[in-house]
Order: sequence, then structure tokens, then C-alpha cells
Amino acid sequence: MAYDNNGMSDSMLNIGSEPRGAYTGSNHFILNEDEKKSTRDQLRSVGPWCRQKAKNIFRKKTLYKKLPIINWLPKYSADDAVGDLVAGITVGLTVIPQALAYAGIAGLPAAYGLYGSFMGCFVYIFLGSHKDVPLGPTAIASLLTLQASSGVWQRAVLLNFLTGLIEILMGIFGLGFLLDFVSGPVNCGFTSAVALVILSSQVKDVLGIAASGNTFVQMWTSIFEHIGDTRVGDTVLGAICIVILLLMRMLTSLKIGPRNHEDKTTMQKAINKTLWLIGTSRNAILVVICGGIGAALHYSDNNWFKLIGYIPPGLPAFQPPPFEIDEVTNGTEIIQKGETFSEMVSNMGSGLFVIPLIALLENMAICKAFADGKAIDASQELIAIGTANVVNSFVQGYPGNGALSRGAVNNSSGARTPMGSLYTGVLVILALLFFTPYFYYIPRSALAAIIIAAVIFMVEVRVIKPMWRSKKSDLLPGLATFIACLALPLEYGILIGIGINVIFILYHSARPKITIELCATTGVSNKYLMITPDRCLIFPSTEYVRHLVNKQGIKNQTPVVLDCSHIYGADYTAATVIETLVKDFEDRNQKILFYNLKPSVVHVFEGVDNKIRVYYNFEDLERVINEK
Amino acid sequence: MAYDNNGMSDSMLNIGSEPRGAYTGSNHFILNEDEKKSTRDQLRSVGPWCRQKAKNIFRKKTLYKKLPIINWLPKYSADDAVGDLVAGITVGLTVIPQALAYAGIAGLPAAYGLYGSFMGCFVYIFLGSHKDVPLGPTAIASLLTLQASSGVWQRAVLLNFLTGLIEILMGIFGLGFLLDFVSGPVNCGFTSAVALVILSSQVKDVLGIAASGNTFVQMWTSIFEHIGDTRVGDTVLGAICIVILLLMRMLTSLKIGPRNHEDKTTMQKAINKTLWLIGTSRNAILVVICGGIGAALHYSDNNWFKLIGYIPPGLPAFQPPPFEIDEVTNGTEIIQKGETFSEMVSNMGSGLFVIPLIALLENMAICKAFADGKAIDASQELIAIGTANVVNSFVQGYPGNGALSRGAVNNSSGARTPMGSLYTGVLVILALLFFTPYFYYIPRSALAAIIIAAVIFMVEVRVIKPMWRSKKSDLLPGLATFIACLALPLEYGILIGIGINVIFILYHSARPKITIELCATTGVSNKYLMITPDRCLIFPSTEYVRHLVNKQGIKNQTPVVLDCSHIYGADYTAATVIETLVKDFEDRNQKILFYNLKPSVVHVFEGVDNKIRVYYNFEDLERVINEK
Repeated sequence: MAYDNNGMSDSMLNIGSEPRGAYTGSNHFILNEDEKKSTRDQLRSVGPWCRQKAKNIFRKKTLYKKLPIINWLPKYSADDAVGDLVAGITVGLTVIPQALAYAGIAGLPAAYGLYGSFMGCFVYIFLGSHKDVPLGPTAIASLLTLQASSGVWQRAVLLNFLTGLIEILMGIFGLGFLLDFVSGPVNCGFTSAVALVILSSQVKDVLGIAASGNTFVQMWTSIFEHIGDTRVGDTVLGAICIVILLLMRMLTSLKIGPRNHEDKTTMQKAINKTLWLIGTSRNAILVVICGGIGAALHYSDNNWFKLIGYIPPGLPAFQPPPFEIDEVTNGTEIIQKGETFSEMVSNMGSGLFVIPLIALLENMAICKAFADGKAIDASQELIAIGTANVVNSFVQGYPGNGALSRGAVNNSSGARTPMGSLYTGVLVILALLFFTPYFYYIPRSALAAIIIAAVIFMVEVRVIKPMWRSKKSDLLPGLATFIACLALPLEYGILIGIGINVIFILYHSARPKITIELCATTGVSNKYLMITPDRCLIFPSTEYVRHLVNKQGIKNQTPVVLDCSHIYGADYTAATVIETLVKDFEDRNQKILFYNLKPSVVHVFEGVDNKIRVYYNFEDLERVINEK
Repeated sequence: MAYDNNGMSDSMLNIGSEPRGAYTGSNHFILNEDEKKSTRDQLRSVGPWCRQKAKNIFRKKTLYKKLPIINWLPKYSADDAVGDLVAGITVGLTVIPQALAYAGIAGLPAAYGLYGSFMGCFVYIFLGSHKDVPLGPTAIASLLTLQASSGVWQRAVLLNFLTGLIEILMGIFGLGFLLDFVSGPVNCGFTSAVALVILSSQVKDVLGIAASGNTFVQMWTSIFEHIGDTRVGDTVLGAICIVILLLMRMLTSLKIGPRNHEDKTTMQKAINKTLWLIGTSRNAILVVICGGIGAALHYSDNNWFKLIGYIPPGLPAFQPPPFEIDEVTNGTEIIQKGETFSEMVSNMGSGLFVIPLIALLENMAICKAFADGKAIDASQELIAIGTANVVNSFVQGYPGNGALSRGAVNNSSGARTPMGSLYTGVLVILALLFFTPYFYYIPRSALAAIIIAAVIFMVEVRVIKPMWRSKKSDLLPGLATFIACLALPLEYGILIGIGINVIFILYHSARPKITIELCATTGVSNKYLMITPDRCLIFPSTEYVRHLVNKQGIKNQTPVVLDCSHIYGADYTAATVIETLVKDFEDRNQKILFYNLKPSVVHVFEGVDNKIRVYYNFEDLERVINEK
């Protein structure tokens, strides 16, 4: 080991010479303990507590927290406005091609991507707590929408409405903490699997074939069934677009001139800025160019590429989400089967609860990435996303949330406040009003290329090495999530990952590490056994600890000291088992002594009329061991 | 607080004067750590490990463990034989009336209780690891059988076969540890609810009415519907029997003469022994007397009491358990519907997995009560119960396991080895061969009285007070289990209780307690913040800790020291979050130092290319804080 253990023990040995009040070892642990209140006092304090809580709800601070716009709007400056305008428009240029493409992931016509891209922006200005979150469709949310609604737009819009409501409720009840139970490995496994599934869903458009399927396995099965129909034009265009996009992506990090930003000439700075802007707007540029090629070929009657086709011009109608699906017949044949509300909901399944969790997960990823260590209010974000989704469902949008890719663009474009979203939203509205006729000519394979070039960076191969070096066992939940997400619908995959992680925690609490040392008292050298568990004693571990202590006690036939320095908590089950343990030792006429047990834990143990012998002073302890 | 905190801090301060090697504070925690093996070494050791495991399976010790009879049979003495004979017959006198009564709880004819009471005894002699466990039907197992098989004997016998197989598998795969997750409070809540449900199931027999239902609520609804049919004879007999049984129960603890056993005269000892024997055989005595009364009334054509009626004489047929139910018709009408194997299994539901768990729970309760601190092999017990149940299902027995009440009788009758079960089994066989004609006359309400007088002591009201004193929050899972077990089928009830407890553990791991102290360095008095989390850092708690450390850091603008003395473990997620935390502090140009971090945790943290500054020496730490 490279660590200086002697230094460590020296520091412990020298603590005695430190003046009191500075640092007094782990016993501040005990000194700081709250005084126990009597039960009656506790009951009496319920009333005032409720009043205080009720008061808090109507306090100014709560209002500022729940309507974050009040914090920044009064201080809004011209500088802020310029920063937000530039950022908003840059994000807008990214979101329009993304929205068209992501609708394809969700199995919906391209227009639905745009429908879900403007109202959320406006809502977030009022409710959003973070400047860099651009609400709208994301690749992950689109894929989850596909799996929960199978490409039926009515289901997708209703899903948006319902998940929005659930998000608002989760925000109100403070369930954002649930995110804590999605560990890093599960998150990585999930994201990587999602990236592969999304990539697979786009292969059909690059090849120009008609394939279907919701999961990775289904998609590839379908692709191989239709591989014979591959169209050369689409395939070549798709491949070229992917290469171009990857090259253009590099422009964003290309910097010319000296390394230090200060030393650069104005010219160099301008070139760098332009390169960055071209790189960032690569999707918009590609769509415009490919759209131009598509239009030219279309008018020369060449159908080399499949185009996205007609998008109804104008804004979507403002109307409630569809709570049932009417049967559509074509005279004699049924084109679309009718569905009642409950049929629609039961089709969505557990997606209804997993989508809000994933939405928050994606959203918090942006917040955490650009928060600079400041606190983020997960509940407020849930309320903002939820409200945006509910409002979106009235303009036929499908579920969306903050997208990390656009968040990064927003941040590096110099966004100052959530106001940037205003310009993004306006740009999308303008696109819907004036540009839809031109979208007709965009080749599908170009959109697929945009998605593929984006998601391949989501496959997190690079985390495997640090994970292996850091904690090998963490690879298991990560890999399990990855495989489960590929084989099963995503929501089951992530739940399996979380389940495995929870089992880890339970195992952790059931099997503490216990150090056993045979010691001897000073001078007289009476042998005794020092047994040190390393964590709290709660019900899953108590029988194990009792068994081990008894076994060692019987084996050694010396007094046993239980060093409880690390036991920070216990429960009723532990108390009863400790009672039995003490009795076991009494029956054998063997001493069992407790050393350094926190008073609060002594209180728990003695609640069951358990008479244990606790010592806080090492000399007392040795004296008792030496007694015959 | 009544605890001597000064003593505590003194002991810490004085540790310096202890000689090395004796007790060196919590740093043996670090000194004892295993040296890290390289990955290649770990992989290389897989082969020998497998060979070692394979070897172990065929070792003599394993055989002794798996066939415990080899341990005690060669040493079997005449004294052992006498002790076992007395105990076996005493238990036999208890088990026969209990078996007749418990069959009623399971909703089966009385004979099935006896069928399940002898083969298990013989199997346990070979496989059982504990001298005091008398296998056979129990009240809880009977109730679970009722809920899973609704009184259809074919289902009950198949259930016995299948749960037996599951128990054997659980034993082989070492799943006995699952029991650790049934905490004391959940156990108490479950047992109390079971007692009330069993009591309720017997009320109908005491009142002589025909009521039905599987859960507490259903049973009482049905009782109130039929309350008008109450029969005076049964009710009076039942009430008298309950009172007599409770009085006779007191005889077991009644002792005459001087307190000390040595000082008693032989006469006094004999009287005490007789009183105890009468008290212990109270059920058998009551059954004989009531049977006599029943017979007398029957022959004088008085039907004051409902009798249990005809029990087919002789041993049950030895045949495989029924894997399907044939349709039984009465010429035109269907008396019993036919059922396929899969229909039978799906009717059993989750009971199939809960029954083995509860069987082990009940069985281990006996082992723990009378083990005197010795280790109990849960896996071996599972294999013993499982084998007994599988064998039992061939003689039409229903699920059973060791019963605590009979275990206590066994223990206090002086059982020496599992051989006592032999005499119990033989007694049941004799009863089946010769006494069944006499069982005809036993009044049902007398049997119900036997059950009620036994189960009322299972309602654990007395644990509420110590639980309240020890740990109030533990009342919640206990009460929730109790209520859920009354309102729902038992298996859901106990699963709800375990679920709540698991949430406790998860909360526990998600929200560590963190002590924050503003300290000053020696001499120069530079301020710094000492932040001490009290437990391991794993994924659910990491963001919380980061948030809190950042918040305190921003508020105080002093260097921050993270005292990691109590952090005994970490995972990859923690490593990445610590990385972000260190970056947060770097961005603010603020110092963050780690004190006393276990080398194994440093290894986890540094796996993600995280450069953290760890100090084990307090003087080094202060020097770094004082640096500008």
C-alpha cells in the first residue's frame, strides 16, 4: 500500500496533545448528539410544526422558489438580452432539424416533433430554475414514447398529458429523490442501450426500407427480413451525411491561433467563433443542403431518396388531448381501430411511471453539468417539465424534456437566463408558419443520419475502464441494465438495473464487515477478544453478528469486547438480538462488554430491558476484564 | 444524558499512552486491511477455488452436516433413550389433539391432520439438526394452507409436495438468509395477526354455525351473517373448555414447596412433576373427557354438540400427490369441479413461495429459543423440512413444520436427541390404527377451544411497550404488517411489511447523518469546516452529500475538511460525484481535503482519475490548511 499507515496511527496517538475544542477525534459524534425529547414533548410539537409548515407555503421565499422568473426578470439587463437572443436562436437552429428527426424515432409524422417544441419553451421561462435547459423532444423521450404508444399519435399526446400530470404530482410530493436510486452504472448502461436502440431504429431509414419493432432485437430481426429492399440512393446519402456530420462536429472544438484565449487576435477569435457556429449548426446546414438536393431531384422526377413528405402548414390546433380514439373506416375497411380511455392507458403500461423518472434523469443531467456546484431543485424542475408537457399536450406535442445536447449548445452560446427559450420557441413557430412546404423535400435518410451521428456518442464505452479500476462489482448492474434494455422494453430494463442495485444495498446492510483481534490487557496481559463491526446494526445483520460473536466467543473462551465505535444506529430487532447475545454469554459465564457505544444506541438497546455493560473509558474496560 | 461523555473523551485523549499492539483505536481498521490482489491474480485463483469447493462437497464434514444423525447416533446412550421416550410420548399426547384441531383451520377433514403428523417425524430423525423440533401441522401453516388451497384436499397435498421441493431447493442454494429480512416488528405483527385470524376461524365452531372466509374481514362478515344460527350446546361447551384449558395451562408453572429445587422433598418433586404433566397433557385430557361426554350424548340421541364425525380408520394410502383433480359427479350434478395441474398451481399463487419462508421462520424460532447460543444451520433445516413435506405429501399430509408450542414441550420434557420424534410418530400411527372410531365423538367446539386457548398467547401485545421505548419508528412496519395481514391474504401482508422495512434500509443508505463543525487550526487559528458523514458513501446518498458539502462550503468560504473516519465503503457513483465535488471546489478556488480515508476507498475514488488530497496525519492537515 502506498499510504502512510504509521502517519495515521501517529495522528491517533497524538490526538491527546491537541488542545480541547480544536479536534477531539470521533467523540464529537457523541458530544453533538441532540438531547432526547420526551414523547409528550414530541407530540406537543406537532401542532406548531403544522402551523409553521402551513405558513411556509405562503411565504415570499416559497413564491420565489416556485416561480423562479421573479428572481431574474427584475434584474434583466441589455447584456442578458443579447446573450439570450444569440443562444436562443442557435438552439432554435438545432431544435428544428432535431424535432423533425426525433418524431421519426417516436414513430410519428415529422410535424409532431415541431408541435412539441415551442409551448414547453414558453412555460419553462416562468417555471424553470436553470438557464441552460431547452425543453422539447429528446431522443430518449422519443424512444420511450414509441415503446409506450407504438406510433399512434393520439396515444402519444395522451401519454404526454398523463406523464405531465404525474410529473407535477411527483414535484409537489417531492419525489425527485427517487432519482438518487439510479446509480451511475445503471445510468450508463441505460443510456448506452438507448443509443444503440435509437441507432437501430434509424438504420431502416438510412437503407430506405420499411422495418418495424420496438426493441433492439425486434428491430434487427425486421431489418434483416427487409434487407433485400435496400435502396442505393438513401444508403449512399445517409452514409455521406454521417461522415460529414462527424467531421463538422469536430469544428466545434477546433481552435486556431495561440492556446490562451487572451493572446488571440480579433481575426483568430472571429474565425474560431465562426467555426464553432458552423459546427453547432451542422444539423440545420445539412438539412438545408439535403433539402435543396431533394427538391431538385424531386422536380427532375428522380426519386433517389425517400422524402419526409407533406407537413401540414401552420400552427397545430389548440384542443384538449384525445381521451379516446374514434374508429376510422374507409367505407368498408377499418383503417384505425377505436380505443377507449382505459384501453389507451393500459397500452401505455409502466411507461407512464418510468417516463417521468427518465425525463427528470435527463433534465437533471443538464442541470448538474452546468450548475457549477449550485443546488438544483429537482421538485421545481419536475413541476416545470410536467406543466410544459401538459400544456404541450394541448397542441398535440408528445413527451419531451430538457435535452443534454441542446443544453450544451445553450451553455456554450452564452445563455444568461431561461429567456433564451423565448427565441427558440418563436423560431419553431416561424418554421411551422412559413417553412413547412420546404420541409417536404428533406430526405429521410439525412434525418436518420443526424440522429445516428448524435447518438453514437451516447454509447458510454469509456466508462468501463474507470468503473473496472474503481469498483468492479459496479459493472454488474451496469451490464445487466444494458443487456436488459436491449432485450426488453426500456422501462423493464432500467427497473431491473435499479432492482439489482437495491439488492446490493440490502446485502450491504445484511453483512457488515467485522474485524476480530485477540488482544491483551496492559501489564497483566489478560487475553480478550476485540470484535469491531464496521456499520450500523439493523435487522438483516443482527443474527449474523450474534452468530459470529458467539462462535468466536466459544472458540476463544476469553472475555469479549464489542467495539461499537462505528455503530451509528440500531433498531428494535437488533436490541432483542443483543439481549439474546448477552444472555448467551451469561449462560456460558463469559464476559461481554460494550465499548464506545453511542448513547442513542444504548437507549435503543436498553429499551427492551437489556442490561448491557458499556464503557467509554479504556482503563475502566481493562480493569473489568482483569477482574476475576 | 446519563452517560459519562468526559470519560469517553478522556479515553480518546489517553489512547496515546497505550502501548502499541494493545489497542490502537480505530486505526486497526486500516492496518488490518487485506492487501489488494491484482485482477490477474484474482482471475487465476478462480480455478483452485472451484476445485476446493468441489472437494468440500465430498468431505466427511459435509456428510456430517447434511446427515446430522451420524453425529449423535453412535454416542446414543440408555439415558438418552429414556429422555427421548418420555419427551416423545408427551409430545405425541399434544400432537394428536392438535392435529385433529389444526386440520379444521386448514379447512380439511380431521384425518388429514393425523396424516401429516408421523412421516415428518421419522424424516427429521435423519436430517434434523436440532433435538427439540417436532415436525407436523402448525396453526400458522394450517392457516396458510387454507388460504392457498381453500379446503380442497388435493390442492393442499400438492401444495405440500411443491412447497417441500421449493424448501429443498432453497436449502441447497443457501437461501435461508432471506429470513434475515423479516425483522422483529414484522414478525410480531404477522404472528399477532395470524393468531387473530386463527381465533376468528374457530369462532364458528364454538358457536356451532356454518361460516366461511379466508381473511379476517371475510370471516367476521360471514360469522355475523350466520349469528342467528348459534347453537347453545356448542357455545357453552366451547366457553367452558377455554376456561378449563387456561386454568390447566397455569398448572405447568405451578410449583409447591420451597423455591430451590434442591430443598424440595421427593413428595413435593413428584407432585410438581404430576402437575406439570397434567398441564402439558391438558389438550389430550380435555379431548378424552369431551369425547366421552360426546359419546354418551350421542348414544342417548342428544345432539347438543356437533361432533367431528367419521374418520377413516387405518393408515393413509402411500401414493403420489394428486397432480390433477378429477371431476366428481353425482349422476347429474357436479359435486367437485375438475382441475388441471396448472389451474391448481395458479390457485396457490404466491403462497407457494411465502409458505416455505414462514415454515423456516417458525422452525428457526424453536431452534433459536433452545439453541443456547449455538449456531443453527438454516439451510439444513430447510432441507429437513422440505424432505419431510415431500414425503408427507405421499401419505396425503398437508404442509407442516416445527411448532413452537410442541418444541417447548419437547424441551421441558427432557428430549436429548431428535430420536424423540420416533415415539411421537409411532403414537400417531397407533392412533390412526386403533383410536379413529373414538375420535368420532369429539365435539367440534372442544377442538376449537383447544386452538383458541393456544393462539391467544400468540397476540404479542407485550412487545409494543419495549418497541416504543427502544425505537418508535419500528412500530410502523409492525403495525402495517398486522393490519395488512388482517385485511389481505397473509402472504401479501408479510410482503408489505418486508417492503416497508426495505424502504427503511434504502432511506438509511440514501440519507446519512452528517456532522458539521467550524474549527480553527492550532496557534494560527485559521478557520476551517470539518464535515463528518457517519456511514458509507454509495449511490443513493452521494448527490445529497455533494449538495450539502457544496452548500456549506459556499456559505462559509473556508477550507473544507471531509473527515472520512466512518466511511467504510464507496462505489463508482460516489467516485464520480466526489470527482465533481473536487471540481466544484477547484472552480471556486476553495480547498477540499480528505482526512482519514480508508485506503480501499481511496482506491475506489482514484479509479476515475480523481486527484484527491488525503491526509492521515492531523498536523499535515493543519499545515495544508494554513498554507495560503
